[in-house]
Amino acid sequence: MNSNEFLSLDLRSLAAVYNSGKLTPANVIELVYERIEKYADPAVWTCLIPPAESLERAENLMAQNAKNLPLYGVPFAIKDNIDLANVPTTAGCPAFAYIPERSATVVEKLCAAGAIPIGKTNMDQFATGLVGTRTPYKTCRNPFDSRYIPGGSSSGSGVAVSAGLVSFALGTDTAGSGRVPAAFTNIVGLKPTKGLLSTRGVVPAVRSLDCVSIFALTCRDAEAILQVAAGFDVEDAFSRLAPVTNLPENKNLRVGIPGESYLNFFGNLEAEKRYREAIDRLQKLGNQIVEIDFKAFAETAPLLYDGPWVAERLAAVGEFLMQNKDAVDPIVYEIISGGSRFDAVTTFKSFYHLAELKRQAEIQWQSMDVLALPTTGTIYSVEEVQKEPFLLNRNLGLYTNFVNLLDLAAIALPSGFQNNKLPTGITLMAPAWNDAFLCRLGAILHAELGGKLGATNVLL
Amino acid sequence: MNSNEFLSLDLRSLAAVYNSGKLTPANVIELVYERIEKYADPAVWTCLIPPAESLERAENLMAQNAKNLPLYGVPFAIKDNIDLANVPTTAGCPAFAYIPERSATVVEKLCAAGAIPIGKTNMDQFATGLVGTRTPYKTCRNPFDSRYIPGGSSSGSGVAVSAGLVSFALGTDTAGSGRVPAAFTNIVGLKPTKGLLSTRGVVPAVRSLDCVSIFALTCRDAEAILQVAAGFDVEDAFSRLAPVTNLPENKNLRVGIPGESYLNFFGNLEAEKRYREAIDRLQKLGNQIVEIDFKAFAETAPLLYDGPWVAERLAAVGEFLMQNKDAVDPIVYEIISGGSRFDAVTTFKSFYHLAELKRQAEIQWQSMDVLALPTTGTIYSVEEVQKEPFLLNRNLGLYTNFVNLLDLAAIALPSGFQNNKLPTGITLMAPAWNDAFLCRLGAILHAELGGKLGATNVLL
Repeated sequence: MNSNEFLSLDLRSLAAVYNSGKLTPANVIELVYERIEKYADPAVWTCLIPPAESLERAENLMAQNAKNLPLYGVPFAIKDNIDLANVPTTAGCPAFAYIPERSATVVEKLCAAGAIPIGKTNMDQFATGLVGTRTPYKTCRNPFDSRYIPGGSSSGSGVAVSAGLVSFALGTDTAGSGRVPAAFTNIVGLKPTKGLLSTRGVVPAVRSLDCVSIFALTCRDAEAILQVAAGFDVEDAFSRLAPVTNLPENKNLRVGIPGESYLNFFGNLEAEKRYREAIDRLQKLGNQIVEIDFKAFAETAPLLYDGPWVAERLAAVGEFLMQNKDAVDPIVYEIISGGSRFDAVTTFKSFYHLAELKRQAEIQWQSMDVLALPTTGTIYSVEEVQKEPFLLNRNLGLYTNFVNLLDLAAIALPSGFQNNKLPTGITLMAPAWNDAFLCRLGAILHAELGGKLGATNVLL
Repeated sequence: MNSNEFLSLDLRSLAAVYNSGKLTPANVIELVYERIEKYADPAVWTCLIPPAESLERAENLMAQNAKNLPLYGVPFAIKDNIDLANVPTTAGCPAFAYIPERSATVVEKLCAAGAIPIGKTNMDQFATGLVGTRTPYKTCRNPFDSRYIPGGSSSGSGVAVSAGLVSFALGTDTAGSGRVPAAFTNIVGLKPTKGLLSTRGVVPAVRSLDCVSIFALTCRDAEAILQVAAGFDVEDAFSRLAPVTNLPENKNLRVGIPGESYLNFFGNLEAEKRYREAIDRLQKLGNQIVEIDFKAFAETAPLLYDGPWVAERLAAVGEFLMQNKDAVDPIVYEIISGGSRFDAVTTFKSFYHLAELKRQAEIQWQSMDVLALPTTGTIYSVEEVQKEPFLLNRNLGLYTNFVNLLDLAAIALPSGFQNNKLPTGITLMAPAWNDAFLCRLGAILHAELGGKLGATNVLL
C-alpha cells in the first residue's frame, strides 16, 4: 500500500487490506492513533484507550488467527454513556463518573466479534441534547466547518467516524442523538428498533425509549455491525425478542412524505433542495412517492420533552443531579429537573394520548412502506446554539423526536451538501424490526447520491 | 320438551332445542324473563331490557332465518360498565350514568352474531373491588348461600350465569373481576389476553390493563363466545393484533405450581384440599406438575393497588369523583382518590420494576406451559367483608392481581365444593394469546371434575 494513500476504515476496505496481507490489525491500530493525534479537534474524546492496550488486543487477534471473525481488527469508538470495562463512564459529566467492571452487552458482543475499542467519545451531558454543546469537555466541532455544531448528543461518535478515525462508533438515540450527528457529519446513523440492541451497561436517558445506535461510513457497514450487536439480552428488561419478519423487497416501494405544511427547514432553502432531490432520487429508483397525513407523527414529537417522559431522565440521574447541581450543565439541569412537574395521572393520560397517536400513525403505515424525512430541517453554528440553546435544539428534533415513541426504526444517511459545504441528511423510517430493510434501501439511495465518505476524500 | 324439565342455557343445550324445533328464540326469551322474575335476589341487575324489546330481537332473528349465526338466540347479560346502546351505563354509580348512543364493540359483535342482551348487571362501583359489596344497588348474593359474597367486581354477571338466567355474561377483569365471581358461583370465567377483545365502549378502570371478560357455564362455551367477541378494533387504541400462534397440544403439559410458602388459603383447609385435588386431576390427565419459582408473580400482585396503576382509576373517573364525593361508595372513593399520591418519576420507576419482574416471570415460563393456581384462597361472607373491607378484598386478589400486569391470559373454572356447600375455583394461566388453549385445557379439567353447572341442577 502506497504510504500516500489514505486508507478508508470502512469494513470493505479494511477487509481488503487484511485479506491481501498488506496490513495487519496492529498496523491499522497504529494508523488510527496517528490519525487521532493529528486530528485538530481536542474535544472528540473523553478518554482514549492507551495505544499499547489496543495494540495488544490487535496482536491477540492476530495470534488467534481470528480472521474469520466478522469484525476482525475493526477499530471503533464508544459514546461515553456506554460501559467499557475498567474505563470511566462519564455520560458527559466528570462528577458522575464510575468505573464499570463489565462492558455493556453490545460492547462485549462487538469485541467478541473482533472489533477493537479505541476510546470513549464526547456527548451532550446525560444524552440530553441534539447539539453537542452541552458538555464540560468542550464542544467538538463540525469536521466540515469548525464554527458549526457536530450534532448531538453523540457528537464525538459522529465526528470520529466522519473524520476517518475509526471504522464505526456506538451512540445512543432516544430523541435523535444517533441521527442528527450523522446528518451533520455526512455519515450513516442507524437507530435500531427499540430493544433490538441491549441497553445493559448504558446510562439511561429515557429508559423505556433508549436505543444504542450505530454510526458508520456506509449503510452496508451499519447493517454488518447491527448483525453483530443485535440480540435478545436476558439481563436487559427492555430487550425484545425479534419476531420473524419478511423484509419487503427494495423495489416499487411506497415512500411516504409529509404534506407541505408539515415541512419546516427554518429558512434553509439549500437543505430543502437537498431533501427534495433525495425524494426525486427515491422516485427515480422506481419507488412511488405518496403524500401521507403526517399529523400523528408531528403531534407525537413534542411529547418527548413536554410530556412525562422527561421524568424518566429524572428517574435515571435525579438523585445525582440534586446533590451535584454545580457539576451539571445548567441547560441539562433545567431540562431534567423539569421532570418533577408531572404526576402519575398526567403520565397515564399521556400514555393514552400516545396510544391514540400510535394508532393513527399505524393507519398511515397502511399506505406506505417507508417514511422519508429530512434528518433535520437545518444546521446551526455553535454560536447560534449558545444564544438560543432550547429553541434551536428543539428545532433539530422536529423529524426525530417521535421515532422511538412510535416504535419505528430509522436510518439517517447523507443527502448532499449545502453551498456553504455543510452536509445535509435524509432519514428513512419504518415500523419496528425493519432495520435490515432500511439498511439495504439506504445503501441503494446512498449509492445513487455518491460522493465522499464522511469528511474524508474517499469516494463511496 | 317436558315442561318440568329445566332447560340449561349452555350453548349446546340451546342449539339442540333450536335445531330440533322444540323451542324458538322467542320461547327462550320468555323463559329467561320468567326465571329472572322468579329469582329471589333483587340485586343482580341494574337495568333489565323490557321483555318486549328482547322478544322483538328474538322474532327478528327468527324472521331472518338466521339459524346459522354462531350465537343464534343466545341470551346474555352485560356488566354495567359496558355500553349497550340507549340503555344507561352506570358503572355501579347512578350519579355517573350516561346513555350511550352506540353499544361497545364487543356487544355489537355479539348481537350481530345472534346473541340477545337481557340486561345490565350489578358490580363493584367503577369495577373497583373483588367482593360485590361496593355498590349502591345492594349486594347481590351468592347463589349457594345468601350470607356469602358473589365475588366482584362483576358480581351480577357471575350470578346471572350461575343461576341459569342467561347463557353467558360479559364482565370486565383488571384485577380479577372476571375470575373471582366465577370461583364463587361455580362457573367459568375467561380473562382473555389484554387487547384481544375491544374495550371501546367500556368505562375504564385501569385503562392500560382492562379486559372484557366472559362468564359461561362451560369452557367450551367461553371459547365459542370468545371467537365471536375477539378481534382487532381500530377504534380502541389498546386493541392488539393477535400474532399467529400454534396452540400447544393438551397433553404432557408442564403444569407450574408455586412452592408451599407462596400458597395461602387464609385458614380455609377445604379450599386448600380442593386446590390440591385439582392439581392431582391435572396430573392424572397425563400432565407433569412442576414447582416453579413464584417470586416474580407474587411480587407483581401488590403493584396493582400499591403502585401507580391506581392513578389510572383516578385518570378515568377522578373529575367525577371530586365533584360527586357523596355519590360515591366511600371505600371506592378512598382507593381511587389515593391515585393522586404518585408522581411521574415513581410511575416510571414502577414500570422498570415491573419490566424486571416480567423478565423473571418469562424465565419461569421456560419451564412450564400453564400455571395452575387457586382462583382465590378462600371466600368470605358479606358481613366479614363489611367489617374488613380493604384487607379481605386484598386477600381475594392474591392469585389474580398480577395477571394483567404480566400480560397473561387466564381461565377460572370450578374445582368442587367445600363442606359448607360453597364452591371453589382453580385458574389456569398462560402467556398472552393462549386463550383458546386455556379454554380447551379447562374443558378437559372441568370434565374430569364433573358435577353441576353453576347453581343449577344440570350436570356438565
